[in-house]
Amino acid sequence: MHIAILTFDGFNELDSFIALGILNRIKKPDWHVSIASPSQQVRSMNCVVIERQIDLIEASNADVVLVGSGMKTRQIVEDKGIMSQLSLDPSRQLIGAQCSGALILAKLGLLRNIPACTDLTTKPWVQEAGVKVLNQAFYANQGIATAGGCLASQYLAAWVIARLEGIEAMKSAIDYVAPVAEKGLFVDLTLQQVSPFLDE
Amino acid sequence: MHIAILTFDGFNELDSFIALGILNRIKKPDWHVSIASPSQQVRSMNCVVIERQIDLIEASNADVVLVGSGMKTRQIVEDKGIMSQLSLDPSRQLIGAQCSGALILAKLGLLRNIPACTDLTTKPWVQEAGVKVLNQAFYANQGIATAGGCLASQYLAAWVIARLEGIEAMKSAIDYVAPVAEKGLFVDLTLQQVSPFLDE
Repeated sequence: MHIAILTFDGFNELDSFIALGILNRIKKPDWHVSIASPSQQVRSMNCVVIERQIDLIEASNADVVLVGSGMKTRQIVEDKGIMSQLSLDPSRQLIGAQCSGALILAKLGLLRNIPACTDLTTKPWVQEAGVKVLNQAFYANQGIATAGGCLASQYLAAWVIARLEGIEAMKSAIDYVAPVAEKGLFVDLTLQQVSPFLDE
Repeated sequence: MHIAILTFDGFNELDSFIALGILNRIKKPDWHVSIASPSQQVRSMNCVVIERQIDLIEASNADVVLVGSGMKTRQIVEDKGIMSQLSLDPSRQLIGAQCSGALILAKLGLLRNIPACTDLTTKPWVQEAGVKVLNQAFYANQGIATAGGCLASQYLAAWVIARLEGIEAMKSAIDYVAPVAEKGLFVDLTLQQVSPFLDE
């Protein structure tokens, strides 16, 4: 199982790395999480430089693609060189977007007739792209999920784990990363957000 | 104000980057957050390679030093080349540690007569170093704070902001990064954890 987290120049560290950290709680030989970027290195919104692990073509072939967020998403959706490499298909992949990542899904035509969650800054741009924005942290419809607010990344990662490995694996992953003495609370918050979308 | 986040080989992405992302919500010209590492590049526990922004000597001169966590902390505290570069002093700095970062503070002699929070895996090693481990997510004593459980990083970052910029700035930073429609809840959780330690 290969999960790609699309991470562009100007990326938000919380959005890419919370998902990456939680998803890596699944310890199975065939479970692999990769940072995918258009260039060999990308620089975050706070000037942290990281090396990509895979390119966008390989990411498009992953079993799960999560689109991270960042301060340059409006430029990225205008960049045909980047967008043309993104070939995502909910019939063969789970697809998720964090915050401004929803704008990329909208521009790829993946949110037609599907409402989305995003952050408050990105909300007007996603609406302008013709997508209804929900006032909630997480929403999923079949194989497409969106989350709004950096720390909602934990819900997006949890949804991927629940879909692929089951709800007990999800609870175990969140329990591990949750604050000491608040583990039950964080598991419950995650269940509240994610479980309504697991019975489709 | 310069805040250094010590980030070693094998680091936990959640622990370094949640703090970095939240601390960078303070938008002031003299507010600067840096990833500090012993080498030019460091590789995370999940094989993400990042470039350091400053070295450990410069980090030791920062106004705030947060010690990140990782899977190699027990090796790091045995590495005299690394430990000798860490010159931390709570009389001139705020000092914090996330999860196994507490072991580094313990070995530096900074937790004498001060209990600490850490993650459940690191707990026995911190106890072996002679430090009482608390069953809670966050604890601060004067200018030294510790947090346990990856997602408690938000409390450690919030404490730094509250100490330096006040409680309203802290609430604003957490509100920004919190999930949509759960912002009040996340601010309240943070206040519960951090505010008992702000009246010393």
